[in-house]
Amino acid sequence: MQLPPKDSREKARKLLLGLQDEICSGLETIDGAGKFQEESWDRPEGGGGRSRVLQEGTVLEQGGVNFSEVHGAELPPSILNQRPEAKGHPWFATGTSMVLHPRNPYIPTVHLNYRYFEAGPVWWFGGGADLTPFYPYLQDAQHFHQTHKEACDSINSDFHKVFKPWCDEYFYLKHRKESRGIGGIFYDYQDGSGKLYKGQNTGGNAEKISKEIGEKKLSWEELFSLAKACGKAFLPSYEPIVKKRKDSKYSDNERHFQLYRRGRYVEFNLVWDRGTIFGLQTNGRTESILMSLPPLARWEYGYQAPKGSREELLTDLFTKPQDWLNDSNLEKICEKHQAIN
Amino acid sequence: MQLPPKDSREKARKLLLGLQDEICSGLETIDGAGKFQEESWDRPEGGGGRSRVLQEGTVLEQGGVNFSEVHGAELPPSILNQRPEAKGHPWFATGTSMVLHPRNPYIPTVHLNYRYFEAGPVWWFGGGADLTPFYPYLQDAQHFHQTHKEACDSINSDFHKVFKPWCDEYFYLKHRKESRGIGGIFYDYQDGSGKLYKGQNTGGNAEKISKEIGEKKLSWEELFSLAKACGKAFLPSYEPIVKKRKDSKYSDNERHFQLYRRGRYVEFNLVWDRGTIFGLQTNGRTESILMSLPPLARWEYGYQAPKGSREELLTDLFTKPQDWLNDSNLEKICEKHQAIN
Repeated sequence: MQLPPKDSREKARKLLLGLQDEICSGLETIDGAGKFQEESWDRPEGGGGRSRVLQEGTVLEQGGVNFSEVHGAELPPSILNQRPEAKGHPWFATGTSMVLHPRNPYIPTVHLNYRYFEAGPVWWFGGGADLTPFYPYLQDAQHFHQTHKEACDSINSDFHKVFKPWCDEYFYLKHRKESRGIGGIFYDYQDGSGKLYKGQNTGGNAEKISKEIGEKKLSWEELFSLAKACGKAFLPSYEPIVKKRKDSKYSDNERHFQLYRRGRYVEFNLVWDRGTIFGLQTNGRTESILMSLPPLARWEYGYQAPKGSREELLTDLFTKPQDWLNDSNLEKICEKHQAIN
Repeated sequence: MQLPPKDSREKARKLLLGLQDEICSGLETIDGAGKFQEESWDRPEGGGGRSRVLQEGTVLEQGGVNFSEVHGAELPPSILNQRPEAKGHPWFATGTSMVLHPRNPYIPTVHLNYRYFEAGPVWWFGGGADLTPFYPYLQDAQHFHQTHKEACDSINSDFHKVFKPWCDEYFYLKHRKESRGIGGIFYDYQDGSGKLYKGQNTGGNAEKISKEIGEKKLSWEELFSLAKACGKAFLPSYEPIVKKRKDSKYSDNERHFQLYRRGRYVEFNLVWDRGTIFGLQTNGRTESILMSLPPLARWEYGYQAPKGSREELLTDLFTKPQDWLNDSNLEKICEKHQAIN
């Protein structure tokens, strides 16, 4: 494995702090009224962070964008399992993560996270972004995927083939047999050696496609550029959707369904998201970690979307992995339900 | 270990079905308007259940009372760790569980669960009940504890000494350094042999007190009677509190705080409750398991209860383990805040 550049930590920090700034500034412009409040914090075991939250905005009911930079003596077992070479070494990790809960049910919830790790002889990048709509619009899904595909392709044309299905497989609620939303991209443990897919051996599409692609040699700089390109792609991937939907009229019915689906977001984050669970179980900063939870959520025993409704289309089509950019059947189905744009 | 009676499963089933009936009937009377809707279901791997839910009642915003009776070829590792003698044997489990989410913020949320297991040469009882108030009233906490203490004492005067702290230790949100509520009783793996405390070796009070008590020989019948006595204690432990609080006037402010605290209930159930997590990760009936989640919940970044408020008293005193029945300091503190009755 290639050694990282001497100023690797400095470069990663600068990139991720800049990403937080850029996103917050962009979101304040989109929102028009809401402002991010900042809190800096120290981690007693080493490092700290800069949490920013926007509450009760015009467009955003809540938005959280966190930067953190932490270090310690040895990585926890859950990560060492995947990176045994890091055992016995001090580690460094930095990341920027974001979850937005818009008020209008026609605007999707969205999540982003980019991070960089070093531990003794090993280093790796991870990250991604995924979109969770409450009402189905094919063009919104396509735009989000297309923007992230172009960002990936600008560095290496093999990335998106693996990172798109990896996202579908990661943001999956097994207990509901549902995806969290329409996906996006997700990658982890990228150190420039071996195969692109470095998740668990589940025999899924990400693993299969990665095998077909075979070994990929990538430099630190290429993976740094990937994080940069994808991070920069976020605002262009999301802003047009917000602009298109933010003035759509909605009634209690749509709000009701939004809050119900937000319950699923809570379920994913607390039951399945490794980052959240790991943070909570290892004395992370609870308020920053749980900034991802929605300001209001609802559960309803035995809820079934009415036959033929948009809520049913969302549940049937938009919470299952789809080939959003290439499957022409999607257009036919969405057309019937006036769910194109 | 003593062999269970020949009709052990039949006796346990009858007790727990009867408990479901008794509780539902009592709750319908208390509510006055809401009725439980029943759904029976089969588990493909063996067994099934009877789920009952009351939605949008007068007193209860939501109440779920589930009975289930399931069996399988081998227990999952998480339980086998605690009961290695069960390895390689088919198992049988039956239980009744309940969570109530009242509408009025002055009425506490409450949970109950009693269960019985058999697996080859081993059998055991488990269960308990715990109360989660949103507004602090010392007498409500004392009444709930006193009623459950008397039920335990009616079988064996050592039970409550161990099961009360065990409850405090189980219903604990480590990531918040908070108890879920004011506790009650909790016990598990009771097979009449060895020490009363059979949880993890955490060096907590339940373990310490159990050590002081020493080995306890108990018959199947005594442990069956314990489940019966505690199950029967539920309505008398809760009904007087509901009657006292149900007509209390409240404003958006109290409702707001109730929804915020319900967020903690969600966090406990999805992050820490072994039963919930185990059920979700092993293909349990999701809708029945998640009937424990509140119909509406709220999260707010960085919320702090106002100085000197009842919300602060709830947070400081009523989400920390207390000796509700014996600590005379509690009365002095609660008196100052008019939080006695």
